[in-house]
Amino acid sequence: MKKKLLQTIHTLSSPESYNSVYHQPNHGSPMPSVKEMQEVVSLIREIIFPGYFGLDILQEATISFYTGVTVDKLFTLLTRQIRRGLCFACDTNSAQYACVSCDGKAEEIAVQFIESLPEIRRILSTDIQAAYNGDPAAKSFGEIIFCYPVIKALLNYRVAHQLVQLNVPLIPRIISEMAHSETGIDIHPEATIGEYFTIDHGTGVVIGATSIIGNHVQLYQGVTLGAKNFPLDEQGNPIKGVPRHPIVEDNVVIYSNATILGRITIGKGAIIGGNVWVTNDVPEGGRILQSRPRSDSFEYGGGI
Amino acid sequence: MKKKLLQTIHTLSSPESYNSVYHQPNHGSPMPSVKEMQEVVSLIREIIFPGYFGLDILQEATISFYTGVTVDKLFTLLTRQIRRGLCFACDTNSAQYACVSCDGKAEEIAVQFIESLPEIRRILSTDIQAAYNGDPAAKSFGEIIFCYPVIKALLNYRVAHQLVQLNVPLIPRIISEMAHSETGIDIHPEATIGEYFTIDHGTGVVIGATSIIGNHVQLYQGVTLGAKNFPLDEQGNPIKGVPRHPIVEDNVVIYSNATILGRITIGKGAIIGGNVWVTNDVPEGGRILQSRPRSDSFEYGGGI
Amino acid sequence: MKKKLLQTIHTLSSPESYNSVYHQPNHGSPMPSVKEMQEVVSLIREIIFPGYFGLDILQEATISFYTGVTVDKLFTLLTRQIRRGLCFACDTNSAQYACVSCDGKAEEIAVQFIESLPEIRRILSTDIQAAYNGDPAAKSFGEIIFCYPVIKALLNYRVAHQLVQLNVPLIPRIISEMAHSETGIDIHPEATIGEYFTIDHGTGVVIGATSIIGNHVQLYQGVTLGAKNFPLDEQGNPIKGVPRHPIVEDNVVIYSNATILGRITIGKGAIIGGNVWVTNDVPEGGRILQSRPRSDSFEYGGGI
Amino acid sequence: MKKKLLQTIHTLSSPESYNSVYHQPNHGSPMPSVKEMQEVVSLIREIIFPGYFGLDILQEATISFYTGVTVDKLFTLLTRQIRRGLCFACDTNSAQYACVSCDGKAEEIAVQFIESLPEIRRILSTDIQAAYNGDPAAKSFGEIIFCYPVIKALLNYRVAHQLVQLNVPLIPRIISEMAHSETGIDIHPEATIGEYFTIDHGTGVVIGATSIIGNHVQLYQGVTLGAKNFPLDEQGNPIKGVPRHPIVEDNVVIYSNATILGRITIGKGAIIGGNVWVTNDVPEGGRILQSRPRSDSFEYGGGI
Amino acid sequence: MKKKLLQTIHTLSSPESYNSVYHQPNHGSPMPSVKEMQEVVSLIREIIFPGYFGLDILQEATISFYTGVTVDKLFTLLTRQIRRGLCFACDTNSAQYACVSCDGKAEEIAVQFIESLPEIRRILSTDIQAAYNGDPAAKSFGEIIFCYPVIKALLNYRVAHQLVQLNVPLIPRIISEMAHSETGIDIHPEATIGEYFTIDHGTGVVIGATSIIGNHVQLYQGVTLGAKNFPLDEQGNPIKGVPRHPIVEDNVVIYSNATILGRITIGKGAIIGGNVWVTNDVPEGGRILQSRPRSDSFEYGGGI
Amino acid sequence: MKKKLLQTIHTLSSPESYNSVYHQPNHGSPMPSVKEMQEVVSLIREIIFPGYFGLDILQEATISFYTGVTVDKLFTLLTRQIRRGLCFACDTNSAQYACVSCDGKAEEIAVQFIESLPEIRRILSTDIQAAYNGDPAAKSFGEIIFCYPVIKALLNYRVAHQLVQLNVPLIPRIISEMAHSETGIDIHPEATIGEYFTIDHGTGVVIGATSIIGNHVQLYQGVTLGAKNFPLDEQGNPIKGVPRHPIVEDNVVIYSNATILGRITIGKGAIIGGNVWVTNDVPEGGRILQSRPRSDSFEYGGGI
Repeated sequence: MKKKLLQTIHTLSSPESYNSVYHQPNHGSPMPSVKEMQEVVSLIREIIFPGYFGLDILQEATISFYTGVTVDKLFTLLTRQIRRGLCFACDTNSAQYACVSCDGKAEEIAVQFIESLPEIRRILSTDIQAAYNGDPAAKSFGEIIFCYPVIKALLNYRVAHQLVQLNVPLIPRIISEMAHSETGIDIHPEATIGEYFTIDHGTGVVIGATSIIGNHVQLYQGVTLGAKNFPLDEQGNPIKGVPRHPIVEDNVVIYSNATILGRITIGKGAIIGGNVWVTNDVPEGGRILQSRPRSDSFEYGGGI
Repeated sequence: MKKKLLQTIHTLSSPESYNSVYHQPNHGSPMPSVKEMQEVVSLIREIIFPGYFGLDILQEATISFYTGVTVDKLFTLLTRQIRRGLCFACDTNSAQYACVSCDGKAEEIAVQFIESLPEIRRILSTDIQAAYNGDPAAKSFGEIIFCYPVIKALLNYRVAHQLVQLNVPLIPRIISEMAHSETGIDIHPEATIGEYFTIDHGTGVVIGATSIIGNHVQLYQGVTLGAKNFPLDEQGNPIKGVPRHPIVEDNVVIYSNATILGRITIGKGAIIGGNVWVTNDVPEGGRILQSRPRSDSFEYGGGI
Repeated sequence: MKKKLLQTIHTLSSPESYNSVYHQPNHGSPMPSVKEMQEVVSLIREIIFPGYFGLDILQEATISFYTGVTVDKLFTLLTRQIRRGLCFACDTNSAQYACVSCDGKAEEIAVQFIESLPEIRRILSTDIQAAYNGDPAAKSFGEIIFCYPVIKALLNYRVAHQLVQLNVPLIPRIISEMAHSETGIDIHPEATIGEYFTIDHGTGVVIGATSIIGNHVQLYQGVTLGAKNFPLDEQGNPIKGVPRHPIVEDNVVIYSNATILGRITIGKGAIIGGNVWVTNDVPEGGRILQSRPRSDSFEYGGGI
Repeated sequence: MKKKLLQTIHTLSSPESYNSVYHQPNHGSPMPSVKEMQEVVSLIREIIFPGYFGLDILQEATISFYTGVTVDKLFTLLTRQIRRGLCFACDTNSAQYACVSCDGKAEEIAVQFIESLPEIRRILSTDIQAAYNGDPAAKSFGEIIFCYPVIKALLNYRVAHQLVQLNVPLIPRIISEMAHSETGIDIHPEATIGEYFTIDHGTGVVIGATSIIGNHVQLYQGVTLGAKNFPLDEQGNPIKGVPRHPIVEDNVVIYSNATILGRITIGKGAIIGGNVWVTNDVPEGGRILQSRPRSDSFEYGGGI
Repeated sequence: MKKKLLQTIHTLSSPESYNSVYHQPNHGSPMPSVKEMQEVVSLIREIIFPGYFGLDILQEATISFYTGVTVDKLFTLLTRQIRRGLCFACDTNSAQYACVSCDGKAEEIAVQFIESLPEIRRILSTDIQAAYNGDPAAKSFGEIIFCYPVIKALLNYRVAHQLVQLNVPLIPRIISEMAHSETGIDIHPEATIGEYFTIDHGTGVVIGATSIIGNHVQLYQGVTLGAKNFPLDEQGNPIKGVPRHPIVEDNVVIYSNATILGRITIGKGAIIGGNVWVTNDVPEGGRILQSRPRSDSFEYGGGI
Repeated sequence: MKKKLLQTIHTLSSPESYNSVYHQPNHGSPMPSVKEMQEVVSLIREIIFPGYFGLDILQEATISFYTGVTVDKLFTLLTRQIRRGLCFACDTNSAQYACVSCDGKAEEIAVQFIESLPEIRRILSTDIQAAYNGDPAAKSFGEIIFCYPVIKALLNYRVAHQLVQLNVPLIPRIISEMAHSETGIDIHPEATIGEYFTIDHGTGVVIGATSIIGNHVQLYQGVTLGAKNFPLDEQGNPIKGVPRHPIVEDNVVIYSNATILGRITIGKGAIIGGNVWVTNDVPEGGRILQSRPRSDSFEYGGGI
């Protein structure tokens, strides 16, 4: 029996078995580490919201010490992971030269990213305001920072989006998927989202890569901003980078489980009711509701 | 470059940057700790379902020892977190006196909560029964306790609801959001829910703060019991505490992704089909289905 | 006050309180351990996708060492948990004999399972291909392995399904629920799913126990393949094991939040639009869309 | 270069390299685990001295719960390690039968050992009394339990000695070496030691396997109770089990760094001064001091 | 058999068994925590020797952040442990009032202690200098900070001694015993030790509570500065606090394993050879050596 | 009060306070990590003694997998720490060039070191043999590997000595001090020690940097092979590197607490009794014993 295990180990270790699921970055670099990226995001969260997620007692007199230490740690870890992200996507064969330049590049991007943290904090504070205004059940800003999944999802999105702007490969998607796993909210880091944005409850929300969302927009759980279809190239592979997701203008509200597909525009102040399937433009101030349900006989005995 | 980091640390540490996202409880108290609250919920789960989640071998002869130790630990941690919840929401400026009284208050609430554990266990056992009856795939009660997300969500809900009854601020929302993150089921701790309640699969379910649910109710994944709209005060802020979510009477079944909005009543024994948008009362025994779909031409090339 | 705690401990420790939520496996065996099962799945993931989730640097020269060690650890842990799964479901009273035979049985099943890992890896590589082809936003296979929840969900499903084939009780459901919690994708381990299968985003997807899915099928988030109703026996309990979920043939696409219920057949190449409620067969190449929405007045003031 | 590593791995993995330092217990049993033995000793220490080393707050009302849980955990771990100790020393080739009987034997020994804990606690309390009386710097019994290395060393010795009495191989030596490493006090578990025994400071003390020590004996650091020589067999190997260490009668005091060698007797109430080399009997009440030092010229320039 | 365990648990939980080894601080306070004291000492070590034992990369630009954070953590933990030390030794029965005053007292002592850290660092730097000058094998100050047990022992001693000065009970002895366990050097925190002090190798050194040591003194391993005897009171208990250990003046060197006992004085610049037993004063510049050994026949067959 | 803490932080963070105890390696390199070195030594121990200290069950069929993985991990960690050791001692100011060459150098040394592991294992097996032959209490080789401090100390010594041969700075001393702390045996890594070497019990043994020890030598606890004095240079600093410790020839036995000082020679087969002070050569086969003790009156009342 043991022999069977040794045989299986042998099979699993042969290139013909693992080749299709194995990736060795150029120049023998290590792979990005999901675990270390989780630590990176924790550090950012501690910096942005002092007192909520790190130490449980943080006084004004010591904030600068904690911020200094946390930024220093963040700088080290983030530089390393950006470096690995660059290596993961690297297709240079002429090693040594590129690598030395990548070392510097990773450091530089990390610094630029960290410089954007005050602005990320400012925008997130508008999102908190929007969540508070949009939910009568919210009792304080603190409750929103502690408990509202939208804030977790937007922190990761706004961080990942900034890294996209700085041309970091792969890492932003790892960050957004972390939030997706924790909150059920899936925002592609390449999407463009304005200020005072909120999503109530959030589970099942999808915001595609080429979506553009204005200011003061409110979504509910289960809303999809997706693509209806996409062009294929001659080999039948999807053509990358074509705008294919909706534009949602300022002050729009979209109720739960609505599916909005394609590069259409939902005009300013429009309201989309829940559970609808929308594949056409909606004008400014428009109202869209599902057609009325029927009351039917229905033999029930339980279960899905 | 390093200079830029020091400058950013300086900016992040200045009150004008962090003021809008910082909360210092009165009298220098520490903040509630999400991590410790996770431990609190783990301890409660070990007490309620002996043998499933703590030690992997627990015999009848030793249950009382383990229960004693776990309750003792729970009492310590819960008292501390209740205390912090009270401090978080405290707006008393005249310190010392209030604080001493809060010490005692937190202990007293923790004791009252722990006294309710046998009753919480009893109600949860009706929920397990309901889950078993409602799912032909369920093979034993044990499988339901181990695997069914509804039990995880209802344990947190029933615990959080009890703490709401005891007027503990913030902590109940932290507990319900934990279950939301793990299961995708978002039940507000202020909602009222009867016995023999079950939710199959559960991802995307939302049950709002003023919802009232009877006995023997069954929901499926993606069901929303939400508010359609809510009154604003003169400053345009939502008025808190107004009943705005549905009343769902005994023996109702609601299929997946149905959205039920507003203070309407779904009468006894009604069945609501999936994917419908319901904003009006449904009479006792009523049946509601989505209007029939159309079969249309549809150019497809992939993707959302 | 302390007296009240002692009294509650006493109540919680009495059989009349815990009996309905307590299960002691026959012959004093320990319960399955969810924590150890998580480690089992981590080990399998490290084996299947070398270099992504274990060590962050894994070179071709050392893959066989790491595979050997990881398989050896997997064998130990999996044998133990399979053993516990067998004990959990065991209803033999004549102890000793059965137990010795179960020791051997658990080992044998673990070996058979491990022998199937190369094939599981091969099928998962077709799923990765399908995810890549189905999403213009995907930049590499590596990104899909790192970030796409569908791969996490299918790894757990394909592992759990294999254990179902080997007649292991309970353990497969623990494995599938882990993936459900992390990804919001709930695939019953007894479902039958072909190759080149993908689910985009995935949150809220439910695939019931008797579902049958062909090759090259693509689902989007929120899709339900459920039961419409199920027969009850004379005591009013659901009859287990009756086919009650859909058959989805090759090359079908189902958009987000569609609910497909009952033992119906969705024919080859059919496309089902989002947010529909489908309880009847759809012919080969069929197209189903939600009936057109209405544009209605809608008094809005916020909130769900 | 990498090639050299692979070559070394190959060499290290070949039996001719590892054979002389490898031991595979009969019947494929696992080796004793030093780490788990450390946990075993921690549990015993928590049981013996309630409130000092486990939980930092332990009230009389809950001592029985904590004792119950700790004894239950101890029983599981100790049974397993005793089992492994038996297997380590097992030279039975006829497997299956012996193994089943060893399972029961390990459990039985663990129970017998646990039954001796109250007596071990009682004797240790006499040792604490002796330490307190023997040291003017000691301020309370609590300080002695917390800080005095002799108590750590005697706890391990008295536990290990009890396991020797119960014929457990290897495990007692692992336990005594733990204390040696922590305290510098090396007491062989086969030595015989009376009540009210103390060692001040303790570093460097050695008490050999066949030593016999009476009641109310006090040693200081660096004292050796050793063998002067020992008979060899025909192959030149030492003959095991011959009495070769001193007998120290009641009320003896031995000062620091004294070396007492051979099966000699130090009579009741004798006092041995520091730094002496004693290889002959000392009568009851005897006094032994180093011969007077000389005052000599000594060229010094530092250092050992 | 199990019954025997339950019976033993019962015995161990009865006051007559545990009373002699149990201490419940007044007013239900928790006991000091050895584990937390270890953390306290780690934090102090990180502060005193920046870059050696905390983070492995610490630049001048960030030292102030790390120092700030580490001091803040130290303040919290140390205050708590000092508080517990006070409670451990507290014999006040009139609770509430005393306790509130102890809260403040603990904080105040912690602040005073922290204020002494720069001076402790300065004295330790003289000890490092002495170690370097006294050992030709030492290659750099850094090697001494990293590796020399004397520095570990003196850090703990100088910290513990400062806490003795501030009248903290028990805690100083816990700190000195930690160093004893790690290094084999046992310095009582009440001893008085000057600057530029060093001990080479150190194992087995004992420095008693009333010892007084000048500047530029060097000891080697195994040296004892002990008491020869001590007065007993009428009950036969040792009288506490009587000077009974040696005075060692400036520039003395004492070689390995020398035993110096009683309140004698070793005059300035004296050199004491190894392995001697000294119970009388040694004059300034004196030289003391063991009397010459004899060369004797000695039947050897191995072993101690 | 808080103000005093801020002031102290300021003082501790100013260069005049920390300069004498701070070392920043050239080129901004990190410091060696004691914690990681502990892991390095653990890995080596697992490789040398398969089955004793890593996994608790290691079968012949899988030894090569475990060895491969452990060597691979060792290579990574050891290369990093050697690199840091080189940086710690580096005095090159012309950065970039040296650093690239050091990267390669560290890797090369790590490979050379690993290549010596089979030989280190072989020599250690002779030491185990010597320990077995020298102690009638030893029951098996396995007991010696598990429990005998001499083996722990010699493993570290032989590893550290090999790194000394490869010119690695600082790291060898960190390794030898680890063993000193655990065992009380302090062997300088530059000492030269033959095969079949053993130390019984071991606490307090010191073997200086220029000592030379032959084959089949046996020491007991507390033995010092030290320097009597050493020449100072014109500034009064000790001159490094001068031979100043004893030469101990083959088959010598030295009993406990003997102090042997200076570059003297202990001839073949000599036996040195315990507690002697030896500063002159001892001829081949010589016997040295302490002069006879006196029996004196001695007023005793307890304590050292």
